[in-house]
Amino acid sequence: MNPMTEEVRKKFIRQKSTETSVDAIIEGLLSGDRTMLSRAITLIESNASRHQKPSEEMLQRLLPYSGDSIRIGITGVPGAGKSTFIESFGLLLCHKGHRVAVLAVDPSSTLHGGSILGDKTRMERLANHPNAFIRPSPSGGTLGGVHRKTRETIIACEAAGYDILLIETVGVGQSEVVVKSMVDFFMLLVLTGAGDELQGMKKGVMELADAVIINKADGGNLELAKKTQKEYKQILHFLQPTTKGWTTPALTCSALYEEGIDQVWEMIQRYMKMTKDSGLLLEKRKMQAKEWLYAQVKEQLESAFFGNEKVEKLVPGIEKKVMNEEMPVAKASRLLFDAFYGK
Amino acid sequence: MNPMTEEVRKKFIRQKSTETSVDAIIEGLLSGDRTMLSRAITLIESNASRHQKPSEEMLQRLLPYSGDSIRIGITGVPGAGKSTFIESFGLLLCHKGHRVAVLAVDPSSTLHGGSILGDKTRMERLANHPNAFIRPSPSGGTLGGVHRKTRETIIACEAAGYDILLIETVGVGQSEVVVKSMVDFFMLLVLTGAGDELQGMKKGVMELADAVIINKADGGNLELAKKTQKEYKQILHFLQPTTKGWTTPALTCSALYEEGIDQVWEMIQRYMKMTKDSGLLLEKRKMQAKEWLYAQVKEQLESAFFGNEKVEKLVPGIEKKVMNEEMPVAKASRLLFDAFYGK
Repeated sequence: MNPMTEEVRKKFIRQKSTETSVDAIIEGLLSGDRTMLSRAITLIESNASRHQKPSEEMLQRLLPYSGDSIRIGITGVPGAGKSTFIESFGLLLCHKGHRVAVLAVDPSSTLHGGSILGDKTRMERLANHPNAFIRPSPSGGTLGGVHRKTRETIIACEAAGYDILLIETVGVGQSEVVVKSMVDFFMLLVLTGAGDELQGMKKGVMELADAVIINKADGGNLELAKKTQKEYKQILHFLQPTTKGWTTPALTCSALYEEGIDQVWEMIQRYMKMTKDSGLLLEKRKMQAKEWLYAQVKEQLESAFFGNEKVEKLVPGIEKKVMNEEMPVAKASRLLFDAFYGK
Repeated sequence: MNPMTEEVRKKFIRQKSTETSVDAIIEGLLSGDRTMLSRAITLIESNASRHQKPSEEMLQRLLPYSGDSIRIGITGVPGAGKSTFIESFGLLLCHKGHRVAVLAVDPSSTLHGGSILGDKTRMERLANHPNAFIRPSPSGGTLGGVHRKTRETIIACEAAGYDILLIETVGVGQSEVVVKSMVDFFMLLVLTGAGDELQGMKKGVMELADAVIINKADGGNLELAKKTQKEYKQILHFLQPTTKGWTTPALTCSALYEEGIDQVWEMIQRYMKMTKDSGLLLEKRKMQAKEWLYAQVKEQLESAFFGNEKVEKLVPGIEKKVMNEEMPVAKASRLLFDAFYGK
């Protein structure tokens, strides 16, 4: 048998393909070459240590070309119709001449080994449009890792000329907070029947939203959608708007029949104008970048600490004692640090 | 002039007084000696490194005597009448034969150098009751430090025989999340006029509450209080209850005229019975202890990292570059770690 098995061969090819020179990637990407954008993202997503510096260098050189876009986050429980909405919305924007990139932050990909989001086959029409770029969600790494990479993927997409970024997630975990922290505008897509839906929605998600969009407002569902809209307006009235000076609206639409989608876009443009004029947008992006830096440093610190062999060995026993109130936390913490510092 | 100035002498005395042997403190504390409880808390709150191990030892030995209490958190915007409520509520419990300790987590104490909470003079009647112990909030350290110490102070109070702990905070910062993480039951005290009030309240605070108490429901205010109660019930209806199986109620009371306070206590007893029977209380306390451990470790890790001299020097410049999108976060983070590891 050939010593280079199929698996090894594939791995070899994969390795080669990410080894394209940074110069070539940047040049291709800036000229709008999708393959090179994909390659750039692969480099960004790589966990191989030999890719760290080339990736950094590439991002450093792409930064001056990034930033000039509208970053839109979209969340909603599974079944809310996110894919259909993104396809309708994305196509509308493409027809208007925009270049649209769709990214996904998928908390389930780590847990289940597969991705439920960002699947190109779900958005075939959009995927085939020359102005659109759909990146399936990365399928490995921690949530922290995934979101870090999504943030850097945004830079690459913007440098490649995509002026509207749609970042999708499911509102069931921490991922919506992560997405919120990297977008200009954050939308919550919901179904009819506010009461029922809120039961399944994670607490606090609604308070992150710059808009609530009630989808599937069509046919026999239309009346219920209007009722739901009223209910959401009532709740929103009691909540503080997530962006200062902006009253969070509740809109209805039918992604399937492409109704009300235009109004969503008008609303976002209104929001962008307002926050650009007031300087809030710039301020927000600066704060997001800063928070991103600290989040990343903390994440790395924690993985260094808890990944330490001696700490790792001690943790289960100490954690159990603390939980059973057999050891004070101060002592537990000191013992872990003693182990970390090799005392 | 005497070389031992007044200041040095005071410091010397202070130092001596905290140097009481751990044995003596524990013995006194377990027999219900308030002075020894105060001394124990002083030892817990001390930042002196020579106090670390005695404090740990003391807590280790007090742990078996702790845990058998009801831990109640109380938050509300300034002016909601927290002191009056705590005094009325505390006195009611004292009259019923309970022993009540009042602690405070005061986010402002760090910022303004003074404490706005836990002032004994505000609750003179309660402070003079033999069954009550009021500890003013610690006036130094970070919020993290303060809350860590409050958690350990709870252990000392419980070991000293206090079976009801009232932990007070203002709902304006992160402190209410911190308090929520150390209590069995968390109450939000509000004034009449839900709409107006919610404007000043931090987002998400209401979603932490196991009960909303509308205070000052007396005299000419009574009707408005009832209306406010209705409004809060409506909002709560849309929110997920913070504790599984528990419907968050909205009650009215008048702390000043001591009306409705009994109902609050009945409600808490109902909650405690329910969560004890279902095992939820034990589960919650275990999770809180675990989270507390991780929070403390992370806090120490971060202060070690950001307190590192080389890191500290680099941070301002790097932060600025990241905020101005002149440096990718991945690179910024690597530079900080290189500095930390002395590379």
